[in-house]
Amino acid sequence: MDYVNLSEEALRTFTINIFQAIGVPPDDARQAADVLLKSDLRGIDSHGVARLSGYVRLWEKERINPDPKVRIVHETHSTATVDGDSGLGLVVAPKAMKIAIEKAEEHGSGWISVRNSNHFGIAAYHAMMALEKDMIGMSMTNASPLVSPTFSAERLLGTNPICYAFPAGKYPPVIVDMATAAAANGKLEIAQRTETTIPEGWIQNKHGHSSTDPTELRKGGALLPLGSNPTHGSHKGFCLSATVDILSSVLSGGNYGPWVPPFVAFLEPPSDPVGLGIGHFLGAMRVDGFRPVDDFKQHMDNWVERFKNARPIDESRPVVIPGEPETAAEQDRSINGIPVIRPVYEDLKHLSRKFNIALD
Amino acid sequence: MDYVNLSEEALRTFTINIFQAIGVPPDDARQAADVLLKSDLRGIDSHGVARLSGYVRLWEKERINPDPKVRIVHETHSTATVDGDSGLGLVVAPKAMKIAIEKAEEHGSGWISVRNSNHFGIAAYHAMMALEKDMIGMSMTNASPLVSPTFSAERLLGTNPICYAFPAGKYPPVIVDMATAAAANGKLEIAQRTETTIPEGWIQNKHGHSSTDPTELRKGGALLPLGSNPTHGSHKGFCLSATVDILSSVLSGGNYGPWVPPFVAFLEPPSDPVGLGIGHFLGAMRVDGFRPVDDFKQHMDNWVERFKNARPIDESRPVVIPGEPETAAEQDRSINGIPVIRPVYEDLKHLSRKFNIALD
Repeated sequence: MDYVNLSEEALRTFTINIFQAIGVPPDDARQAADVLLKSDLRGIDSHGVARLSGYVRLWEKERINPDPKVRIVHETHSTATVDGDSGLGLVVAPKAMKIAIEKAEEHGSGWISVRNSNHFGIAAYHAMMALEKDMIGMSMTNASPLVSPTFSAERLLGTNPICYAFPAGKYPPVIVDMATAAAANGKLEIAQRTETTIPEGWIQNKHGHSSTDPTELRKGGALLPLGSNPTHGSHKGFCLSATVDILSSVLSGGNYGPWVPPFVAFLEPPSDPVGLGIGHFLGAMRVDGFRPVDDFKQHMDNWVERFKNARPIDESRPVVIPGEPETAAEQDRSINGIPVIRPVYEDLKHLSRKFNIALD
Repeated sequence: MDYVNLSEEALRTFTINIFQAIGVPPDDARQAADVLLKSDLRGIDSHGVARLSGYVRLWEKERINPDPKVRIVHETHSTATVDGDSGLGLVVAPKAMKIAIEKAEEHGSGWISVRNSNHFGIAAYHAMMALEKDMIGMSMTNASPLVSPTFSAERLLGTNPICYAFPAGKYPPVIVDMATAAAANGKLEIAQRTETTIPEGWIQNKHGHSSTDPTELRKGGALLPLGSNPTHGSHKGFCLSATVDILSSVLSGGNYGPWVPPFVAFLEPPSDPVGLGIGHFLGAMRVDGFRPVDDFKQHMDNWVERFKNARPIDESRPVVIPGEPETAAEQDRSINGIPVIRPVYEDLKHLSRKFNIALD
């Protein structure tokens, strides 16, 4: 696909300036841009600057507060509920994760349920904040309903990702970051745009029947949970997504299930909310709350080596360690720049003109 | 299938007596029996008294210490590593879970990584211990390698289950309890016994190719991770299983990956262990560490109702709330008795004769 190569620096400066233009204070703008850039650097193009205009449109609809007062509603030594005051999830979640890390420093672990937030970007950003302190990080979020539970013709759950970040020694950290749906929504968006068929097991139509036509999603269909169908364990994908939904929003006082407000600004939020905004669940645990850090890292390295060296089915395709492709992308793109596909580049140019902010 | 109906009481007494006969102290024997009976009551026949003779055989091989000194190796306010002293997981895990609950009572949450343990029965038992204190419970364990990571021809992971238990109000608790493989090993054991074919996407043969012949498992094949193949997200099942493995054993100092000792006594443990026994990871969080218990339960009830009332694909098959079938089985079987299939009944009769303990 046609793309424009932009340096990390240029994209970062532009993104910070756009966030400041909508009233986000400088520190928060740098934070929000850092989350988006991390996504682009790690090759997760769907969650980076491609979403910048989406956040702007939510702000235009007054569904995002650019200068939120993020506060702890309730806490114990190792738990807290944080209210995001309708702020950008890109700002709220890192603030909440800092609280988790502080609690872990003092009490071994910290677990934060967040309400009244918005889309937080890639889950990995937040979990990975724990790594520099030699902690294990965890992050989850609920999201707009696109996924149907097993046996349901209705969409009731988001793609609700789960992320764990584990520090290693000589190897890069092991980063599990996965949506709980069978297929990534990004892949479906591409198939919808190019009108190509998709494999069985990714979506169902409005009657709940498996479909290979991605346009069925626009006609009342739904993404399927990980497992795809009951024979292959779709109830497990449903269970995982339900867990994320409950920990993120039933526990914090956010909206859950079909009440989660949509990310896209052209869809109105439900008129009968059951809570405030969307919810996240974040955690940090000190490795040395369990065993000495060096012992853990040495065994993580051994774990990584053993799995990398597994006898492959096909000699040309070795086992991929969770996070390995993203680490490789980050190394490449931080040096060689970020390839921004043409439609996203045009979107950024549109923002550039609108706010009179240069995109170099 | 032919079965013998036994009362909960009769099976419980028999199981306690067998555990005592192999040297398990009375309190621990009652605990171990309670875990197995809970499994049979909840309809998870593969993990109940069907495994009793398996534990006895491990004891005969001196791989289970009937009277372990379970101890905390290291701890912070909200974390600990527990050494199970080679005891029954059925005894070690509940003791560790009690520590998690005590930490949660005092500090909001408790997270315990356990090493030097053995098979702990159903994950749900341990997570559900938190419910009576109005806490959210979590349990995971690694297990003998039966599952191949995506792209691997080798078995490197167990069916590594994940369980969350959430208290509700007027509805039964929501219990997520799922193996991270595509299909339950129990279903495969039945298919192997009856020599029927199985669906594509459950197993691969020794070359790593998908197979519908369950006997391939005995010939070097492997179970597939949840997701079944790369197109349908098997890397996500691999990621979940890896997470369980790392939290259970890399964190505690247990054996991980292919080094996890087998449950079956006729297979020898690896001669080059990387840790002690198998590992578990257990957690408890006080609901009121986040929000008032009544608020949480009211919203859990609303969550359950909304999902139960989802528009079904087929009117005769409503959406199943996680844990609902097991709760129904428990209500039925605690009154009407437990149907023990003939091969398991014969196994119990064999134990009855061997230890001269009556099975009524």
